[in-house]
Amino acid sequence: MDPWTVGEIADYGKLMREFGMESFDAYRRRFDEFRYMRRGVVFGHRDFARILECMDKKKPYAMMTGLMPSGAFHMGHKMVADEIIWFQEHGADTFICAADVESYLMRDKSFAEARRIAVEEYLANYFALGLKSKGLHFWFQSDHVGEYYRLRDMAAKRVTFNELTAIYGELSPGKIVSVLTQVADILHPQLERYGGPRPTVVPVGADQDPHIRLTRDIASRLAAEREGGADFKCQVPSATYHKFMGGLSGGKMSSSDQKSHIALTEDPAAASRKVMSAKTGGRATAEEQRRLGGEPDKCMVYELYLYHLMDDDLELAKVYNECKCGKLTCGEDKRRCADLVERFLRAHQERLPSARERAERLLH
Amino acid sequence: MDPWTVGEIADYGKLMREFGMESFDAYRRRFDEFRYMRRGVVFGHRDFARILECMDKKKPYAMMTGLMPSGAFHMGHKMVADEIIWFQEHGADTFICAADVESYLMRDKSFAEARRIAVEEYLANYFALGLKSKGLHFWFQSDHVGEYYRLRDMAAKRVTFNELTAIYGELSPGKIVSVLTQVADILHPQLERYGGPRPTVVPVGADQDPHIRLTRDIASRLAAEREGGADFKCQVPSATYHKFMGGLSGGKMSSSDQKSHIALTEDPAAASRKVMSAKTGGRATAEEQRRLGGEPDKCMVYELYLYHLMDDDLELAKVYNECKCGKLTCGEDKRRCADLVERFLRAHQERLPSARERAERLLH
Repeated sequence: MDPWTVGEIADYGKLMREFGMESFDAYRRRFDEFRYMRRGVVFGHRDFARILECMDKKKPYAMMTGLMPSGAFHMGHKMVADEIIWFQEHGADTFICAADVESYLMRDKSFAEARRIAVEEYLANYFALGLKSKGLHFWFQSDHVGEYYRLRDMAAKRVTFNELTAIYGELSPGKIVSVLTQVADILHPQLERYGGPRPTVVPVGADQDPHIRLTRDIASRLAAEREGGADFKCQVPSATYHKFMGGLSGGKMSSSDQKSHIALTEDPAAASRKVMSAKTGGRATAEEQRRLGGEPDKCMVYELYLYHLMDDDLELAKVYNECKCGKLTCGEDKRRCADLVERFLRAHQERLPSARERAERLLH
Repeated sequence: MDPWTVGEIADYGKLMREFGMESFDAYRRRFDEFRYMRRGVVFGHRDFARILECMDKKKPYAMMTGLMPSGAFHMGHKMVADEIIWFQEHGADTFICAADVESYLMRDKSFAEARRIAVEEYLANYFALGLKSKGLHFWFQSDHVGEYYRLRDMAAKRVTFNELTAIYGELSPGKIVSVLTQVADILHPQLERYGGPRPTVVPVGADQDPHIRLTRDIASRLAAEREGGADFKCQVPSATYHKFMGGLSGGKMSSSDQKSHIALTEDPAAASRKVMSAKTGGRATAEEQRRLGGEPDKCMVYELYLYHLMDDDLELAKVYNECKCGKLTCGEDKRRCADLVERFLRAHQERLPSARERAERLLH
């Protein structure tokens, strides 16, 4: 598993057994108002207890996550946005980093293009989904805040070549600089000027765990020493991990494959047509479907309900059961989903123009 | 040969044969007013012709060099200072970089300590030796100028891991960041805000050639392409190489070994005593000395004349010949040298207080 070539992750349990990620089950009930947590989409964590303590005792904590500005903002990205907004509503100082150095080094994007995508696609959609500007720190890796680069140098000094190889496999100079920049991103909220040392939660997809592990190792080394001139104290950051949405036609949902995703800016009618041709858990014939029932766990339409379109668990359970027992056919189900997608996109896109203005304002 | 563990370089010819450095002989006559060039202390170069052209045609060019703020400023460092000043007097835009990121990563110096040494030891002595503030760009690697860090990222993208290994041997993440920072240092004068693309000469000790080679390779790649968003054009930098002064008791002259060097801030009487116990090219007995003659080429006292204390070639030749034929004894010669050192230091140290003030002013 590496953070640049995500495929489907077949076995989330393996991540926990082999890399020491902990199950989020203990917290599911506690946060049953939040769809992703209640439904096990957020399935893993590291050190979430210290974040919970901050929430309970109203102590300051930070939420930090990044975005890779490489293409259209789609339903998979919406998941991260919803998590950001949830943590913001739950008292977190909110830090969002646009990883333009990474997209430059690893994806060949120019800085100008990355900036455009980050603002027009990501930040605007975050706002349209409910992000508040108040207390928000949004920055680009290339913004070159002094101490931020010093963090990168401090990280470079506290990790060996073999450790990097063990985590990331084959290395290049660009990859090394890129991962050190990620470490600086994650520790950034704990710089004095951004609030100093405090618990930080990083909600990410499971593929980003290598960055979390590396940063936690480096942070624990930094926390254990007192650097003469560097003068940086920090706490080891926490993380939560979510599962990935699948692509509409199976495989992964990807920015670069238009057929695989629904972008939040795409034409609602076109999106609706994509749903109508999505991969479902249906059987080969209507007769078989009635006899054997459908397979909602393999169905992209069901996944859209689960992640985004149905917040009511009873309603969702009804769909699941009716599909399972063959009562619900794929045709009518897809029409309902297409309709929900279309309505969601129309409402969202009405909020977009003013959200775009807010995004531009934030950066000027 | 690597830039962090300099020993004596036994064979400068080998550097030219194996690494494609060119001999400076062709330019010695042309610049016979400059002691280091005339006497072959500056022995090698890369692409010096384009610098000469700028000098001749009064076209803009830059001179860039770095300092490693790790200890006392001594007679070996004075050589670099004299070269900086010479290029400044010959029309170069003058760029001096204090390598505090490197001293942090490679020598465990804190940033605060590096800053103190760079200003009090290096910059102050540069001024006392004749550097002018006018048109001078002096900066720290950790100053975090935006485009400067972008240069580091651009460099990271244009070099492979195997190339770095071929140049520097075993690598660590800190070493990789450190050498990429050096590349940014050297290309820095060609950023638009510092004058844009133009010939740049880097006068350095021969041990720094690995950085020069790496930077020239990366610069030629940058020069050959037009980067979409990055938008940085540059010319491949030139370099001149000087030999190293030996230490007073043989071996290398080093900041960390007080007996090996004369610091420009040390007590003149103490420095004079060091000269009196320096390694010379004298024979075991006075009788042998008269019979066989001395060996000025192995004599640290003669080296002090050659590099610093005797600007008159005839006078120097007289010392050389009188030593060779046994007429000059080491005792009287050391007394003369000690006297010259003492006088030089007294005069220099009279200029230091106001030079220190200028150094502080430049940075505030």
